[in-house]
Amino acid sequence: MDTLARRLGPELMSARPSESDERAAGAPHVVIVGAGFGGLEATKALARAPVRVTLIDRVNHHCFQPLLYQVATGTLSPADIAWPVRSIFSRQRNAEILMAEVTGVDTHARAVVLMEGRHVAYDYLIIATGATHSYFGHDEWSPVAPGLKRIEDATGIRRRLLLAFERAELEDDEAERRRLMTFIVVGGGPTGVEMAGAIADMSRLTLARDFRRIDPRNSRIVLVEAGSRVLAAFPETLSAYAQRALESMGVEVWTTAPVVELDTRGASTAQGNRIEAATVIWAAGVTASPAAAWISAAVDRAGRIRVEPDLSVPGHPEIFAIGDTALALGPGGRPAPGLAPAAKQMGRYVGRLIAARVQSRTEPAGFRYRDFGDLATIGRKRAVVSFGRLRLTGFIAWAFWSAAHIFFLIGVRNRVVVALTWIWEYLTLQRGARLILRASAE
Amino acid sequence: MDTLARRLGPELMSARPSESDERAAGAPHVVIVGAGFGGLEATKALARAPVRVTLIDRVNHHCFQPLLYQVATGTLSPADIAWPVRSIFSRQRNAEILMAEVTGVDTHARAVVLMEGRHVAYDYLIIATGATHSYFGHDEWSPVAPGLKRIEDATGIRRRLLLAFERAELEDDEAERRRLMTFIVVGGGPTGVEMAGAIADMSRLTLARDFRRIDPRNSRIVLVEAGSRVLAAFPETLSAYAQRALESMGVEVWTTAPVVELDTRGASTAQGNRIEAATVIWAAGVTASPAAAWISAAVDRAGRIRVEPDLSVPGHPEIFAIGDTALALGPGGRPAPGLAPAAKQMGRYVGRLIAARVQSRTEPAGFRYRDFGDLATIGRKRAVVSFGRLRLTGFIAWAFWSAAHIFFLIGVRNRVVVALTWIWEYLTLQRGARLILRASAE
Repeated sequence: MDTLARRLGPELMSARPSESDERAAGAPHVVIVGAGFGGLEATKALARAPVRVTLIDRVNHHCFQPLLYQVATGTLSPADIAWPVRSIFSRQRNAEILMAEVTGVDTHARAVVLMEGRHVAYDYLIIATGATHSYFGHDEWSPVAPGLKRIEDATGIRRRLLLAFERAELEDDEAERRRLMTFIVVGGGPTGVEMAGAIADMSRLTLARDFRRIDPRNSRIVLVEAGSRVLAAFPETLSAYAQRALESMGVEVWTTAPVVELDTRGASTAQGNRIEAATVIWAAGVTASPAAAWISAAVDRAGRIRVEPDLSVPGHPEIFAIGDTALALGPGGRPAPGLAPAAKQMGRYVGRLIAARVQSRTEPAGFRYRDFGDLATIGRKRAVVSFGRLRLTGFIAWAFWSAAHIFFLIGVRNRVVVALTWIWEYLTLQRGARLILRASAE
Repeated sequence: MDTLARRLGPELMSARPSESDERAAGAPHVVIVGAGFGGLEATKALARAPVRVTLIDRVNHHCFQPLLYQVATGTLSPADIAWPVRSIFSRQRNAEILMAEVTGVDTHARAVVLMEGRHVAYDYLIIATGATHSYFGHDEWSPVAPGLKRIEDATGIRRRLLLAFERAELEDDEAERRRLMTFIVVGGGPTGVEMAGAIADMSRLTLARDFRRIDPRNSRIVLVEAGSRVLAAFPETLSAYAQRALESMGVEVWTTAPVVELDTRGASTAQGNRIEAATVIWAAGVTASPAAAWISAAVDRAGRIRVEPDLSVPGHPEIFAIGDTALALGPGGRPAPGLAPAAKQMGRYVGRLIAARVQSRTEPAGFRYRDFGDLATIGRKRAVVSFGRLRLTGFIAWAFWSAAHIFFLIGVRNRVVVALTWIWEYLTLQRGARLILRASAE
């Protein structure tokens, strides 16, 4: 890559159109950074527009983040919830995929700057770079309490969870064994609830018979939430149900308990309560990707770019921000949530907007988030669903959650494999992807 | 783990029997090192014997090595061919699993030494530590040309293969692009043939439409074999078929071409032929694990322990070596091959031998390898099978190979998922596990 960087001058990338699209070389060039839910939808929405699309991501796959926790807890394999971006768009001939890391944007020259200084010129730029964990000023907590955003995060957490049991099995000291078998999940949003529930299911059901010296059913799982209830985005009745369900599964739920100390031995809350734990998982907060800095855009406290009603960046009608990177205020000033459906809707909206603009057709009115509701799973046979006035809990909500997630997976094979895996786990309590793999240096 | 090592004195591990087996505390202790095919079979064969079994492996899973190349080429996920050892034996109450690294054996004290100095005492010891790659004195080739023994090797090779195409897509220099799209497989045994065929299928079929600047169908794949023919263990007619089949798939097969130079730019053969290639995969040779040194046993050139007819180590009737670590000579002095069936047969044999010995029953006669034949796949719809006088090639051999491998997988879920994945790939040419994951530092 080093020699490559030297050889390629600035903007050479954009000067060399793909062979199959020579004719489209004069077409406007839409560069999309980030192959998450928003980036994919934007690319798809431009499939029939007279544009060239370049979708840039630093990894080669799209990850279905809502099921990452199932990779982290040994149910699914990475490939079950991740697809090569190239194969998603292999038939969309106006789309080109670039596996590269973006380091900045030259808004004057209208070019995206890649690692090592290469430039990719754009006519329209869509920033869809998502969010990352936020440790609220305590970045030193990051190595101690990993969050769950990428495939590698999930396999890393899987390794930590499974190694904790392996070490406990070898441990002779009662207190240390106890600490190894204590798991803290920080943050009571959907991810935290799902993680805590899945760790409970894994230790109580899957691992129950697999050890000889320890009993994984005695694991202690503590869900620590700073606010007054879990699943704060849901109606209160569903929060209460989720808490009861977690408690019945053996999870301790601590609300109004902000974490103020966190180290390799455990965590302490503002009330002065200390939990000795070898494994802490961070599900408390996210902050937008640093993309705002690339274009010197104004951001909110969570780092999100304040966008215009058409999701463009103020002062840059040719640059758009979507998904978790954008603060898109709806009527009443309520921002669209950091959820997959919101990112997808924004991606589709901007794709259509650009398609209309380049064809001088009537552009759609300002973006408006359509809220189809919220759903979160808690554990085996338990979930909560809030759809308009509809409230579901228990098995029916869990079945609904399962069906919805299978529906939104990409590709027939993944749907079949995930469905079979869930049925198999439901019947046998086993998890097939319980691998501890080395985080090797290759 | 550090504090743990200090706290546990020597032999404490063996002095503390598992809770569920207090009664068996006085029973002979069989320690098995290595949870490969041999170690698993030995453990199973001891299920009903009045012994305590401790199965030690440094990783938590058993890996089905014959299908590793399908992980390396993006067809299967690691969890499809790897099972947690604990769950395999969760119902075998006399078996205990230890995830730990063995560093030596104290044959006088009859104890296995673990990393950090802990000891595990044994009455019987089975060494089933397998083999690793051998670079024939060129250990400096190891980082350049990775071999395929562990899950992490396979995901590492997958990353290299897929990154080569990603880099070629970005590359502007014709010669460099050519080098990036050239793949060398060193060694024409079953693994080399399977790898070369799978890379050909992947580049010609799966990736064909996924790039815009390069055409993966133009990849150059060279299989380099030092001997006079590929699949040397097979009848000559099948070797010839395999070579023709590979060539029809676009693989260059170079026989009588020992590699004498290998670096990050490519490889050279003894004839002075040079291939510029960014990716080299090593499938040329294996050497036994260093376990022989633990017990100062006599070895052959490949590092295998020369064992007695009952697979015990000369001078140590209580220590056995099985699988790729053992040189078990059959009638006529022909050694049992380094294949899964041989390892399984040896494991079963030693397990039964120990079971008979501790119960003072008649011990089985010396180990005799039963050769059920050989099979190797070449690519989509092509394989070779040699069973006694039966010779199969082409589609029927491929169907037979597929069925046999599904049969030998562990667990219903894995069989179903692998079968579905193969059917899906057969129909669509797609590979679902084409992920480039970071070899992260966690």
